[in-house]
Amino acid sequence: MTCFQVINADSHSAARRGVLTTAHGVVQTPAFMPVGTAGAVKGITPQYLEASGAEIILANTYHLMLRPGVEVVQNLGGLHRLMAWNRPILTDSGGYQVFSLGELTKIDDDGVEFASHVDGTRVRLNAEIATEIQSRMGSDIIMCFDECTPLPADTARLQQAAARTFEWARRCKTALAGQQRTEDRGQTADSIRPPAAVLRRPLLFGIVQGGTDLDLRRRCAEQIVDIGFDGYALGGLSVGEGHEEMVKTVRYTAPLLPGDHPRYLMGVGMPADILAAVFAGVDMFDCVLPTRNGRNAFAFLPGGALRLRNSTHIDSTEPVQPGCDCYCCRHFTRGAIRHFFNCDEMLGPILLSIHNLRFYQRLMAEIRRHIEQGDFGIWAIQELEKYVETDK
Amino acid sequence: MTCFQVINADSHSAARRGVLTTAHGVVQTPAFMPVGTAGAVKGITPQYLEASGAEIILANTYHLMLRPGVEVVQNLGGLHRLMAWNRPILTDSGGYQVFSLGELTKIDDDGVEFASHVDGTRVRLNAEIATEIQSRMGSDIIMCFDECTPLPADTARLQQAAARTFEWARRCKTALAGQQRTEDRGQTADSIRPPAAVLRRPLLFGIVQGGTDLDLRRRCAEQIVDIGFDGYALGGLSVGEGHEEMVKTVRYTAPLLPGDHPRYLMGVGMPADILAAVFAGVDMFDCVLPTRNGRNAFAFLPGGALRLRNSTHIDSTEPVQPGCDCYCCRHFTRGAIRHFFNCDEMLGPILLSIHNLRFYQRLMAEIRRHIEQGDFGIWAIQELEKYVETDK
Repeated sequence: MTCFQVINADSHSAARRGVLTTAHGVVQTPAFMPVGTAGAVKGITPQYLEASGAEIILANTYHLMLRPGVEVVQNLGGLHRLMAWNRPILTDSGGYQVFSLGELTKIDDDGVEFASHVDGTRVRLNAEIATEIQSRMGSDIIMCFDECTPLPADTARLQQAAARTFEWARRCKTALAGQQRTEDRGQTADSIRPPAAVLRRPLLFGIVQGGTDLDLRRRCAEQIVDIGFDGYALGGLSVGEGHEEMVKTVRYTAPLLPGDHPRYLMGVGMPADILAAVFAGVDMFDCVLPTRNGRNAFAFLPGGALRLRNSTHIDSTEPVQPGCDCYCCRHFTRGAIRHFFNCDEMLGPILLSIHNLRFYQRLMAEIRRHIEQGDFGIWAIQELEKYVETDK
Repeated sequence: MTCFQVINADSHSAARRGVLTTAHGVVQTPAFMPVGTAGAVKGITPQYLEASGAEIILANTYHLMLRPGVEVVQNLGGLHRLMAWNRPILTDSGGYQVFSLGELTKIDDDGVEFASHVDGTRVRLNAEIATEIQSRMGSDIIMCFDECTPLPADTARLQQAAARTFEWARRCKTALAGQQRTEDRGQTADSIRPPAAVLRRPLLFGIVQGGTDLDLRRRCAEQIVDIGFDGYALGGLSVGEGHEEMVKTVRYTAPLLPGDHPRYLMGVGMPADILAAVFAGVDMFDCVLPTRNGRNAFAFLPGGALRLRNSTHIDSTEPVQPGCDCYCCRHFTRGAIRHFFNCDEMLGPILLSIHNLRFYQRLMAEIRRHIEQGDFGIWAIQELEKYVETDK
């Protein structure tokens, strides 16, 4: 059983409308995954996450392996049970976080050793360990362990990282196949009953690195595709290269990945980034922006944004986004939310996280609708213009 | 139309089962009011507050007059609209907070002048101002402005405070009557449609002070009853005097208040305090404990408590309270909640606030059921013994 079906392809762009099947149900693509770093999407209960329309979320192997640890996650019934989220979960491999959060990191061709940012203990992570941890937690989509190079990086450094990422991807595939043979996957998720007619195995996604070096991206893509994975991710973007460079790299790389497999752009992004990447043929996204910005009193609006701490909202009886169907907009005024932020009431961050998550899911639903209707290309260009105007 | 009907009286105690009618609907008593200090019950959305079974909440005049200010509350459609809470709200008068939070407080026979704890500005509060602010915010139950004496206090100090509280209560009643004649109360709550057959005016509650000096309590009670109010509150308790002293004072004072009016014990308290006070004939309570303790990883359980940061819960797949029907207990394990607190995830405080608020409302529902069944007295003594054991 293949995990991905393309049900519509746009004629004016590379956008496609698909369905991704996992062990915990199906996901309509293009899809946005809210980020539950340490097993919780910050600031909200899963009840609001479901109400937002999210069908899949992301959790971080790096954070969870340090706290509470893979044994505890297993003892608590697996990641789905811990998070009270009975739908698909994608776990990243920890690669990105090791390089951004780990201290005293030592990297060699086998993997990485680093000091935990929590308590300083030395921890080792490599292809086999990262795959095993994700598998034991009960992840629906396991990401290959990769080396994410910080920008700027010289060509030699990028090439070395790409070579390791390729070699580690091969090892991840071998490791997961071995685990699948020896483990009864059902055990880690006993209390969670997957819907009928879904996959009984985790998916494994390979990651294409290469920075903004298009030649290197092409070579990486060819190598990773050659190994063969359920899906393909573009890593190492949204790390400071800017919208234009990111889009250029995605436009070049996405068509190099097989059309009958899902394409995932890691850590992206702003609404304009998502629109442009869907245009280029990307199917999946994750980003902390809806919740992180929500906690900082920043609300997403169509074609723009609202800063709720601003004193212009003091007496405003408008909802954050007129017409929005989220819990925040149906019940609270801008003035009330400004007041909550002003008093450091948790309700401010809670409400804007709810709104922003709903905003993102509505954006994805609109994207899917326009692909189905066959007018995505034209619509997306108009939308992009609005956002680019606002971003300036 | 009278605001309070006693529908059952317990034969083995002074407990009564009543119905309190306000401009925003009825409240079944004995009732517990969660505290929404600055216009938000900390850590949760009103959706969970409603799901807890709460029928009435408390908001603080002191906090709201400083931030966002009474004009802003009015401009935002009144307190109910600001809080997204379409049921009764009781507002305290600010008296207690002036003495506990205000700085450089100057008190005279007219009222109090203090420096705002937010920005240091000098603010004046007296009977007329406190009544007007509560009325303009759209409060359903207005509390008289009182002087709350910190413990310990000598007799002369207590007597002076009691005399002022009496005089200020008289002035509050006069002030509200004047405002009712000149103001169209409907305007402050245009967007909120009160249920049919409810009062169209705010209720005014007098406050009995007197510390733990029973003679002074009696004189205060007689004076306040002599003025005549919709309901009567016992103030100046739960300020460090301890359970026994508090109960002794309540047992002595409650019967001095007219039986056909609601009795409200301000700022109380722990489950055992509530059980003992209902036994003595008290109908209403408010306290920050369910939410404050929830934020500190402390969960209320029948006859006890649970500290979720404790490492014994690391691998626990039990819910916080087995059998509890709250969102937290239906979806999350103790181990997961401990992990959230360990990682400073907002979800920990959110979930335990949800549980504790539901715990308190279930306690009140049980109390009401036992009064209806006629076995409250016996049941309450058994329950009290459990709590007293645990408190030791």
